[in-house]
Amino acid sequence: MNDFKWSGAEKQVAKRAFNAALEREYGKLMHQTREMVARMQEGTHLWRLHDFLTDKRRKIDEKYDYRYSQLIFVFARLIHEGWLSLEELEGLHEDKLSKIETILSLARE
Amino acid sequence: MNDFKWSGAEKQVAKRAFNAALEREYGKLMHQTREMVARMQEGTHLWRLHDFLTDKRRKIDEKYDYRYSQLIFVFARLIHEGWLSLEELEGLHEDKLSKIETILSLARE
Repeated sequence: MNDFKWSGAEKQVAKRAFNAALEREYGKLMHQTREMVARMQEGTHLWRLHDFLTDKRRKIDEKYDYRYSQLIFVFARLIHEGWLSLEELEGLHEDKLSKIETILSLARE
Repeated sequence: MNDFKWSGAEKQVAKRAFNAALEREYGKLMHQTREMVARMQEGTHLWRLHDFLTDKRRKIDEKYDYRYSQLIFVFARLIHEGWLSLEELEGLHEDKLSKIETILSLARE
């Protein structure tokens, strides 16, 4: 995947899609955090929230890797997990889109 | 401090005071957490909350050390920080109370 070239226009599409997915994950995470805090009744529940955030932060840091060498995999994963739609990647060159679709079809097998 | 003997009655007083201070710290921490969550507007604020909880958890774990060899220091610190009053330790032997008072007076110097 390292040999893909990203044009300026493609980089814009990629950045917008990447950020949109991340915002959706953050939105869900903020909702879950608010729910946990609303149900919080005793001190040790603070550490349950802390463990939850530690886990989510590690996973999001690992998943949202904006290196161009990784973006095809990142986008395939985000679509597979439902954080992004293929339509939001419109504007990427056909070679990239077909690679993402290939990865997706393999993931669905 | 290792040579202090703790009677059963003293252990009860110690446990109750220890837990009372911890509950107060938890209460303040839950209040701060609720405030941070109420002000949370974007995803990265989640990590600000996470950093806050990481720091507090580490400090509380370190501070609330219920080994009898440490309790005199722990109580002096909790009183110094305002989480506990000397009156709540009524029932401990005079040797322990005076040691705590000595530590407190040194801390105030």
